[in-house]
Amino acid sequence: MSTVRSVKSLIPLLDRVLIQRVKSEAKTASGILLPESSVKELNEGKVLAVGPGQLGKDGQRLPMGVQKGDRVLIPSYGGSPVEVGDDVYHVFRDSEIIAKINE
Amino acid sequence: MSTVRSVKSLIPLLDRVLIQRVKSEAKTASGILLPESSVKELNEGKVLAVGPGQLGKDGQRLPMGVQKGDRVLIPSYGGSPVEVGDDVYHVFRDSEIIAKINE
Amino acid sequence: MSTVRSVKSLIPLLDRVLIQRVKSEAKTASGILLPESSVKELNEGKVLAVGPGQLGKDGQRLPMGVQKGDRVLIPSYGGSPVEVGDDVYHVFRDSEIIAKINE
Amino acid sequence: MSTVRSVKSLIPLLDRVLIQRVKSEAKTASGILLPESSVKELNEGKVLAVGPGQLGKDGQRLPMGVQKGDRVLIPSYGGSPVEVGDDVYHVFRDSEIIAKINE
Amino acid sequence: MSTVRSVKSLIPLLDRVLIQRVKSEAKTASGILLPESSVKELNEGKVLAVGPGQLGKDGQRLPMGVQKGDRVLIPSYGGSPVEVGDDVYHVFRDSEIIAKINE
Amino acid sequence: MSTVRSVKSLIPLLDRVLIQRVKSEAKTASGILLPESSVKELNEGKVLAVGPGQLGKDGQRLPMGVQKGDRVLIPSYGGSPVEVGDDVYHVFRDSEIIAKINE
Amino acid sequence: MSTVRSVKSLIPLLDRVLIQRVKSEAKTASGILLPESSVKELNEGKVLAVGPGQLGKDGQRLPMGVQKGDRVLIPSYGGSPVEVGDDVYHVFRDSEIIAKINE
Repeated sequence: MSTVRSVKSLIPLLDRVLIQRVKSEAKTASGILLPESSVKELNEGKVLAVGPGQLGKDGQRLPMGVQKGDRVLIPSYGGSPVEVGDDVYHVFRDSEIIAKINE
Repeated sequence: MSTVRSVKSLIPLLDRVLIQRVKSEAKTASGILLPESSVKELNEGKVLAVGPGQLGKDGQRLPMGVQKGDRVLIPSYGGSPVEVGDDVYHVFRDSEIIAKINE
Repeated sequence: MSTVRSVKSLIPLLDRVLIQRVKSEAKTASGILLPESSVKELNEGKVLAVGPGQLGKDGQRLPMGVQKGDRVLIPSYGGSPVEVGDDVYHVFRDSEIIAKINE
Repeated sequence: MSTVRSVKSLIPLLDRVLIQRVKSEAKTASGILLPESSVKELNEGKVLAVGPGQLGKDGQRLPMGVQKGDRVLIPSYGGSPVEVGDDVYHVFRDSEIIAKINE
Repeated sequence: MSTVRSVKSLIPLLDRVLIQRVKSEAKTASGILLPESSVKELNEGKVLAVGPGQLGKDGQRLPMGVQKGDRVLIPSYGGSPVEVGDDVYHVFRDSEIIAKINE
Repeated sequence: MSTVRSVKSLIPLLDRVLIQRVKSEAKTASGILLPESSVKELNEGKVLAVGPGQLGKDGQRLPMGVQKGDRVLIPSYGGSPVEVGDDVYHVFRDSEIIAKINE
Repeated sequence: MSTVRSVKSLIPLLDRVLIQRVKSEAKTASGILLPESSVKELNEGKVLAVGPGQLGKDGQRLPMGVQKGDRVLIPSYGGSPVEVGDDVYHVFRDSEIIAKINE
């Protein structure tokens, strides 16, 4: 938990990527409301902010693979949870992001 | 799981390789249908997409060993499953792919 | 424990960051005093001092990601506690700090 | 298992070496047939194919120690089994091969 | 144990730092003598001698962070004990020293 | 086991060293024959063959510390056994050899 | 054990250091003979021989921190025992030696 008021205040360091996980719909396609327990966490997220990149051996920044706004595939495990108010966000290292989703 | 509609939307990052595993035939050569449990997973796959390559120490991209369309031999264990709709795909690192199949 | 009289006397070495953890309010917004046990530790801190940076392979200093006065997000685990009088501070490596908080 | 028809179709990647293990004779020198259980696996093999070599730090290929046709000494443990039809082959990394046999 | 007569004879090698731990007072501020068991070990020490520095990749010496006479903060665990007569000293690597104390 | 006929056919790869362990005498100085169980394995060997050397980062060969014919001190544990006929030889990495014996 | 006749025949390889441990006196200062069990092993030794130095990345030798004849402080654990006749010597890596003793 933190006293952070808005997730927009967070500026990731090094090669970290701040991600908002996509939640599955709480109702079916036909509009029937699903109980909380059947709402699965998805391995998918939206990039809210990225760090400046990992430091290379000569002190230069290594390029990031994703950028703010990207839709991405994330691993099922790993990432550090970050609580802002009632919401939970996740921080991954750039190299942990599996793929960009381009649709 | 994800909300991804088509596996073609996935763009692997770094040296990742998106692979569709080859399933063994559900019937014998003579056409007899086999029960689900006797259909073995094969260590073989088709490359659907490849990342731009791992970052070298100076920030350059290291060349990939396989490319889209390649038939490859994959290890029995490892790789991250990626669900798209009802299908499961696998993501391997380029260096985990054992061999190309050239026939 | 140490005989250090003021936390201001501490000069972190290498890429270490001396952090004062932010404590959650011991009373609610409406002013009701909370029992000690309900005061959660926050993953948030204020940077009191930073080291000169990790040594690169050629002996040069690698740049630090945070500086004195920064508000930062820190991991739930890790960091070395440092007692000065009755207060406990924490020392993290620069690369362990998750994000700066800019508000 | 795989749908590969001939082991000759396999092209090892990086520094991998495809090896056919030498089987001990199933009969004694005097021609007496030995039971299956007394046929020991030998730490010896024939190189069927080699990869282009491991990638060096600058992206160059590091030279391989063995080549196609070599008779080699292999470790008792390790190596990945590769099934082609009813036969099992082994894939080792070039650096795992102990020695060449020159006779 | 050793036959070393004076701690001053010890010349640390590489990036080692010879440290004399600060002991807490065996009496309270008001002069009451404390029993042995209540004398806590402090995470604080005085640098008695430092090595010439770790060897860099090209054989050059990497600079040390502390020097003889420095007051330093040391970790609670780690360090090798060195007995000289009835006294115990500690040897830490330069990179293990947390901070200098400047008061 | 292998079908190798002579240990002289073995050509070690990389920085491997083929060693024939020295056996302790099976009789005492005064000629009394010792039972098999009292014959201790010695940490001593003769170098039968050496590899061309480990590959450096730029693909160059790093120099070997021992050469064919050297008498060497080897560690009590480690090394891979190699059976040729009824004899067992050992393969060590060059860096595992403790010392040369020069007498 | 080995058939080595004199410890002087041993030529350490790489960055190894051959050390003769200093034994504590078997009698007290006043001349009273101590029982064997009260003779403690000391963390102190004399350097009998040193190797040419570890190989750097470009194949050059890295400088050794100690030389033949040095009196040194060694760690309580570690080091490989080497038996020559009835005596036991120890081999340490140069980087394991804690300090030189200069008295």
